[in-house]
Amino acid sequence: MSHGSLDRLALDDDARRRLRFLVTALGLTSVTRVNRLLDGSRGETSAEHSWHLALAAVVLGAGTADGVDLAHVVAMLLVHDLVEIDAGDVPIYDAHARAAAAEGEERAAARLFGLLPPEEAEEQLALWREFEAAESPEARFARALDRLQPILVHWAGDGAAWIERGITEAQERELVAVVEEHWAPLAPLASALVDDAARRGLLS
Amino acid sequence: MSHGSLDRLALDDDARRRLRFLVTALGLTSVTRVNRLLDGSRGETSAEHSWHLALAAVVLGAGTADGVDLAHVVAMLLVHDLVEIDAGDVPIYDAHARAAAAEGEERAAARLFGLLPPEEAEEQLALWREFEAAESPEARFARALDRLQPILVHWAGDGAAWIERGITEAQERELVAVVEEHWAPLAPLASALVDDAARRGLLS
Repeated sequence: MSHGSLDRLALDDDARRRLRFLVTALGLTSVTRVNRLLDGSRGETSAEHSWHLALAAVVLGAGTADGVDLAHVVAMLLVHDLVEIDAGDVPIYDAHARAAAAEGEERAAARLFGLLPPEEAEEQLALWREFEAAESPEARFARALDRLQPILVHWAGDGAAWIERGITEAQERELVAVVEEHWAPLAPLASALVDDAARRGLLS
Repeated sequence: MSHGSLDRLALDDDARRRLRFLVTALGLTSVTRVNRLLDGSRGETSAEHSWHLALAAVVLGAGTADGVDLAHVVAMLLVHDLVEIDAGDVPIYDAHARAAAAEGEERAAARLFGLLPPEEAEEQLALWREFEAAESPEARFARALDRLQPILVHWAGDGAAWIERGITEAQERELVAVVEEHWAPLAPLASALVDDAARRGLLS
């Protein structure tokens, strides 16, 4: 058995580029986050997180994001974490590490999206940069969801990963503030989850 | 520590319904498929599969699905496997089991989408039924992707799961035929992957 190479496939360059991007993207199923799965068996992967976020955009957008192009939000969320394939996941609690990671993520984005046919590489890179800049309404809503979703996952797992890492109520209140800053209508949801977690003693 | 209940959260019924749906949807991270991850460590989850399919719709749709509403395809793919939370995953090789599973999946869809506010429950249920019916161009393209993606994942993993289960070339050719039937422009991709797999002896 020899190792597979897309170069040997009877396809044109365009199709080969698209498949190479999709095969490479599968690497996001090996990037594990701090959040635990509901069944506690392992950490959530960034691929699973991306799916759940895209679903959350549809479900929460209907209630809280009138006038926002939700399809555009979903497109952004599907690719927002791909850079982690090269650069790894940086926990949201570590502001210093997040700043240091920015350069590596920019290189990763250039390499990964650069696998696509040139025009689409530009489009996807622009989507990723839009998310990172968090300026357009779509990117602000997406960013708020990206901070709310881990709170929901931790809460749903009875705070196992919060307790394990000694996460404090103040740290979660900071995340609620980020949600509030980016998309205020989502803040009450984040607040209600943190209030309940604090009441149940799941946060230090 | 007490177990979490959304009923105790200081939120209105609408927000509570949306969060309940999203927490329940996390169950898709515990549904494991036959496909192995690239690193071989475990089976791909249906949540990861759903994410990768949505990404594939964007990336392959640009080349092969002119005139198709890709945002609608993505919306369909994000929820197409949710019924597996209640009904489990049925391997695509087992036609008899798939027919028998249909009734359970209909019940699962009613329960899961029924967690949402009524109007959106109807919308999401309609999306799921559209995918199952495979009649609209969007659903046909989505269905073709749903058959192509496992071929790509198996191929990328050097056929480990094919070999383990003794999957034959004829079985994979049947899947290529399903791709061809639903969305012919994707068939050459599926064919090229199966040709290469057969040449490398990854299929019985």
